[in-house]
Amino acid sequence: MEELDAVGPWEVFAWWTQHFPADGWAVTTFSVEGAPVTCEKTLVIQPHHSTATAPRLDVFLHPGGDGTRGMLDDPDHLQWLREQRQHVPLMTNVCTGSTVFAAAGLLHDRPATTNRTALDQLTRLDETIIVKPGQQYVDDGDIITAAGISAGIDMALHIVGRLTTTERARQVRDGIEYHPEPPH
Amino acid sequence: MEELDAVGPWEVFAWWTQHFPADGWAVTTFSVEGAPVTCEKTLVIQPHHSTATAPRLDVFLHPGGDGTRGMLDDPDHLQWLREQRQHVPLMTNVCTGSTVFAAAGLLHDRPATTNRTALDQLTRLDETIIVKPGQQYVDDGDIITAAGISAGIDMALHIVGRLTTTERARQVRDGIEYHPEPPH
Repeated sequence: MEELDAVGPWEVFAWWTQHFPADGWAVTTFSVEGAPVTCEKTLVIQPHHSTATAPRLDVFLHPGGDGTRGMLDDPDHLQWLREQRQHVPLMTNVCTGSTVFAAAGLLHDRPATTNRTALDQLTRLDETIIVKPGQQYVDDGDIITAAGISAGIDMALHIVGRLTTTERARQVRDGIEYHPEPPH
Repeated sequence: MEELDAVGPWEVFAWWTQHFPADGWAVTTFSVEGAPVTCEKTLVIQPHHSTATAPRLDVFLHPGGDGTRGMLDDPDHLQWLREQRQHVPLMTNVCTGSTVFAAAGLLHDRPATTNRTALDQLTRLDETIIVKPGQQYVDDGDIITAAGISAGIDMALHIVGRLTTTERARQVRDGIEYHPEPPH
């Protein structure tokens, strides 16, 4: 996975749940076997769980990265994703995580986005997908997709707002000092 | 350390150096003993090096987090920082990393910032520091300090621009899709 795809949303959710425990949410991470994940840019992250020991999820987040290419024709991973879809109320992804959702058929007839370099691939995987370029994330109710890498931060703050209140999302925004000054 | 303090800048620098190898830069991570770092919000990250095996640095970045409190009266860590200062041309930090720089005397008589909750602490540690609230980062030439957590992304993009060109910083901004939409 791409490092910030996962750690951006992680920071948002973890800051929120640590500072507002009374909201009643918790966040965790997992990999298929529970083994350390060597990320796209070589950083190694040790998740908390394997898929087998992960708790029941209310929100699922699938990061992207070049490693998703191999998942597009991995029947086990795609089948596992379809099973998640059956019992997780809110399925979300960041960046090229969308292409894996598309390959699993989860984005059929739905609006979605992905990394700017993979927008065409979305429709090649499933021509019924309504691609939405130029948005940081696309909220389609029970599925939310985000654009590339840092867009996961925007999506995560949006999710905090959806699960609680916009005021809470603002508090988390201020807590992580997300008052961005990109080069212009 | 706080997860995004480190992984935000990591993503910026790693995306840059991976996509523009001809720029001649590389980025790496290290911990004191080279052991995995259990971050502020429980994520475990395995660095590439120990301080002993880390390569000679052109830019040093010290993340923050509640773990910095113990560093403020750790004479070994502060002395090691002063030694880094002697041979690293550009010393930078994110969030409460500034308080450690302050305790080591590196911010004496300089403008600086830190996490919004630690601004007062900066002057308690060294009353000569000119605290600059309301900025994502403060560039004082050979030392750059950033505000809390996500401000490290802004600082890192600024550093890419300083080391190369503003156009390159814009390319990295676009590559990681840093077109932020914070809740307002």
